[in-house]
Amino acid sequence: MEAEEEGALLAARLAAGGQGHVLRFWPQLGAAERRELAAELRGMDVAEINRFFRRARGGGAAAAEGAPDGRMEPVPRDVLGSASRDRGLLPGWESRGLAEIAGGRVCALLLAGGQGTRLGVPYPKGMCDVGLPSRKSLFHLQAQRLRRLQQLAEERHGEPCCIPWYIMTSGRTMESTQEFFQKHRYFGLRKEDVVFFQQGMLPALGFDGKILLEEKGKISMAPDGNGGLYRALGAHGIVADMERRGVRSVHVYCVDNILVKVADPAFIGFCLEKGADCGAKVVEKTNPTEPVGVVCRVDGVYQVVEYSEISLATAQKRGADGRLLFNAGNIANHYFTTAFLKDVVNTYEPQLQHHVAEKKIPHVDVETGQLVQPEKPNGIKMEKFVFDIFQFSKKFVVYEVLREDEFSPLKNADSQNGKDNPTTARHALMSLHHRWVLNAGGHFVDENGTRIPAIPRLPNGRSDAPPADVTANLKDASDLPIQCEISPLISYGGEGLEKYVKDREFRAPLIIDEDGIHELVKNGM
Amino acid sequence: MEAEEEGALLAARLAAGGQGHVLRFWPQLGAAERRELAAELRGMDVAEINRFFRRARGGGAAAAEGAPDGRMEPVPRDVLGSASRDRGLLPGWESRGLAEIAGGRVCALLLAGGQGTRLGVPYPKGMCDVGLPSRKSLFHLQAQRLRRLQQLAEERHGEPCCIPWYIMTSGRTMESTQEFFQKHRYFGLRKEDVVFFQQGMLPALGFDGKILLEEKGKISMAPDGNGGLYRALGAHGIVADMERRGVRSVHVYCVDNILVKVADPAFIGFCLEKGADCGAKVVEKTNPTEPVGVVCRVDGVYQVVEYSEISLATAQKRGADGRLLFNAGNIANHYFTTAFLKDVVNTYEPQLQHHVAEKKIPHVDVETGQLVQPEKPNGIKMEKFVFDIFQFSKKFVVYEVLREDEFSPLKNADSQNGKDNPTTARHALMSLHHRWVLNAGGHFVDENGTRIPAIPRLPNGRSDAPPADVTANLKDASDLPIQCEISPLISYGGEGLEKYVKDREFRAPLIIDEDGIHELVKNGM
Repeated sequence: MEAEEEGALLAARLAAGGQGHVLRFWPQLGAAERRELAAELRGMDVAEINRFFRRARGGGAAAAEGAPDGRMEPVPRDVLGSASRDRGLLPGWESRGLAEIAGGRVCALLLAGGQGTRLGVPYPKGMCDVGLPSRKSLFHLQAQRLRRLQQLAEERHGEPCCIPWYIMTSGRTMESTQEFFQKHRYFGLRKEDVVFFQQGMLPALGFDGKILLEEKGKISMAPDGNGGLYRALGAHGIVADMERRGVRSVHVYCVDNILVKVADPAFIGFCLEKGADCGAKVVEKTNPTEPVGVVCRVDGVYQVVEYSEISLATAQKRGADGRLLFNAGNIANHYFTTAFLKDVVNTYEPQLQHHVAEKKIPHVDVETGQLVQPEKPNGIKMEKFVFDIFQFSKKFVVYEVLREDEFSPLKNADSQNGKDNPTTARHALMSLHHRWVLNAGGHFVDENGTRIPAIPRLPNGRSDAPPADVTANLKDASDLPIQCEISPLISYGGEGLEKYVKDREFRAPLIIDEDGIHELVKNGM
Repeated sequence: MEAEEEGALLAARLAAGGQGHVLRFWPQLGAAERRELAAELRGMDVAEINRFFRRARGGGAAAAEGAPDGRMEPVPRDVLGSASRDRGLLPGWESRGLAEIAGGRVCALLLAGGQGTRLGVPYPKGMCDVGLPSRKSLFHLQAQRLRRLQQLAEERHGEPCCIPWYIMTSGRTMESTQEFFQKHRYFGLRKEDVVFFQQGMLPALGFDGKILLEEKGKISMAPDGNGGLYRALGAHGIVADMERRGVRSVHVYCVDNILVKVADPAFIGFCLEKGADCGAKVVEKTNPTEPVGVVCRVDGVYQVVEYSEISLATAQKRGADGRLLFNAGNIANHYFTTAFLKDVVNTYEPQLQHHVAEKKIPHVDVETGQLVQPEKPNGIKMEKFVFDIFQFSKKFVVYEVLREDEFSPLKNADSQNGKDNPTTARHALMSLHHRWVLNAGGHFVDENGTRIPAIPRLPNGRSDAPPADVTANLKDASDLPIQCEISPLISYGGEGLEKYVKDREFRAPLIIDEDGIHELVKNGM
């Protein structure tokens, strides 16, 4: 009787909001389906969804002003820190960041709501093993980087410390992510320092604002974008948890970058030195048509302009130094103070309207009950983006790092177009670790004991380079570069390797981890 | 009797040179095999080969000085012209180059001695069709660029002119290359303005300097490197032919770059303005471990230091502007004056020693007569490189261009590692032509008539870009970017397209050629 009463209330609320059609097939549903649908609808604020739709569709002030293209200004030099241009300042920034970490005032926040759909795996991306010698997953690498960083801060400052790790999942990834961490005993982190929380979902809508049904008894739902972070921070009391722990600096990053320097002390130290409340780590965009969003100012306010919003004329503008004028490529790697996040959650986030992505959304036609597979976009998904809040920053900074050192995202399956896939991710990591070994004074030799050049001859040597004899120099030409992997527990960013490698010769594959040095044949000098 | 006598002389000459073993199986050979072997040996200067071997193996002065790594200096700004940093000067350089072309004082020289072995095709690379809508081969594109350039120079200066095209083939590619040109009626060029000549071959040698046999009656021969150019120029009277035609500027380039601006007037004009006798076109090397040779000075002398000769410490050095210090990436694209080439042929080339490439060379064991497939390098091939002569230049300059505008080499088959293959070559050309159309005021629309952004949403959008709906924007997601091809007869470098595209909307695939505009659906505004 109570259930029936609730059902009637629900129906009335939906009808009042113009969404009564979602119950169209109610009479045809079994008891279990009814229970699930009712549960889903119970948590849904129809009036709010309608309001989101009206604001997103209306476009508001931003849409009225038109495309940002003509109003973009590049990031001024005085808010920019650069790992390549300010090398002398790096040690100072890093020290400052390590001190902050040692004081327990830094946390990491991982955006891991997406599933590996495009990657072709049925589990969260962070669980991916890209085929490293160690077979470590992305989660595993990140966890170990945090452990090493805690150790470095402790060594420097003499006291144990902790970097809390907040992990935002979605309804689709929460359960499997938590299970994965449990199974791996939190990769050596303390369970209480790994905090999972879930981002929200929103229904997909038709162009008329009507909620779409995925099945007769199921709403078509999608995560509310990585900018759903801010609502989720509020909903789950995460900012309060940060405050309770004494955290003042938050490093937010995306799960898919295998090279990510989690809680990067240099980045954090730079932001602290500058007194920033918000910062973006970027890599230089060098090709005008590279599909990457750029950090810039529009009407004096910082934001990320997406690549599809920029005209070619603007994208190919260059400064006197020959670089692209808009070259601050966004890599979803940000700094926020806890205080700024608190203001965002309490004040700014509700002001943000959703972005609309027009999509082809399979759905059940409410007239015929047939499943429709549209050939053209037929509806929208509503999302917020993590960078939407840059505009509210009172002191915004940009920190440029080298792509080969810090950015190699995992997006596609290997069978796809050869970019941003498990092979490129694996190669990027091994190439970085190879360089670490060389920079620490180690060497690699081939099967004849001959030293391999720093840049080995490849089958695809350029233009008029001499014909290369790959097999002479490299054991496994199908898996360039040289196989070399160093556990994050041994080195966070290349530091501390001299004692393992200086003046020694190694044969690949070389692995250095907490159990020591593993190589094909050990060959001390 | 005469043949026998010659045979005896040959045997004596070989024996005197310590190479008598190449006749070891003579008694077992048939008449035809004997004739072929004798013919091959007759043209071979054994004493010279032995001299080459001794000098190359000995290493001479260069080897004594050790690796160039510690002695490298970057290209000074005053010898550098840059398409991105000196944009204001480009029109002047281009005018100067066009005037020179109009005066008949410029030729192009194509290095096309290599076979498409790594590419997996049994014919010369220049014959490759990378799958453009037009199905044009690399040779075809280059020929049409020359025709358009002649037309531009003529339009500007009012008189017909000609850019002679010298094509260096090897013993392996001569016949098929000439047949291809005949079959295509020289792609509209005058037959007498296309001059084929053949580079030399040298035998492969064991580490002991003994000539290796490929079969019992066949010497193992290989082309003598792209630096074999200079010897071939002398042997075939090519410089004299250039002088006869009044040519003063020579543009030398490699066949495999689909974007090559053959006889690029801006590059030639820049070299003329600088009074250079020798110049190298380069692209910026942005990743320290990219396998590309760099143009630099060593002991005050210009040269290309190959990537395998450079240490990581040197490769990752950066200037105050954050760029790599050694970033002048060699793309085998050079300028020479005829006078300089003449000096090279007559005076300098004979002083150059060969580079030695250690190889695994299958060969017939002269003791057992068995074919040996070595697992380790067992011998050498001797080569010269086209850039070996930079050191003799009295006024050397460097001209930096944008990679996306001018460099996309075809090296590998599509099945290989996703770099420098037919797909990347095709995409590079279509992406460039897409940009030309946009820059000339044209637009592309999708199947719904909606304008496609300059940088279309891709399936592999970066990090926190919104989820892309590829199929909504792009007809053929498997063949990004937008299919667009403009015949070189219509535009050499993007010029003159306004009358075809300004304020018009097109649907891809779009082809513009001498017969007009071809697109999926024509849709004037």
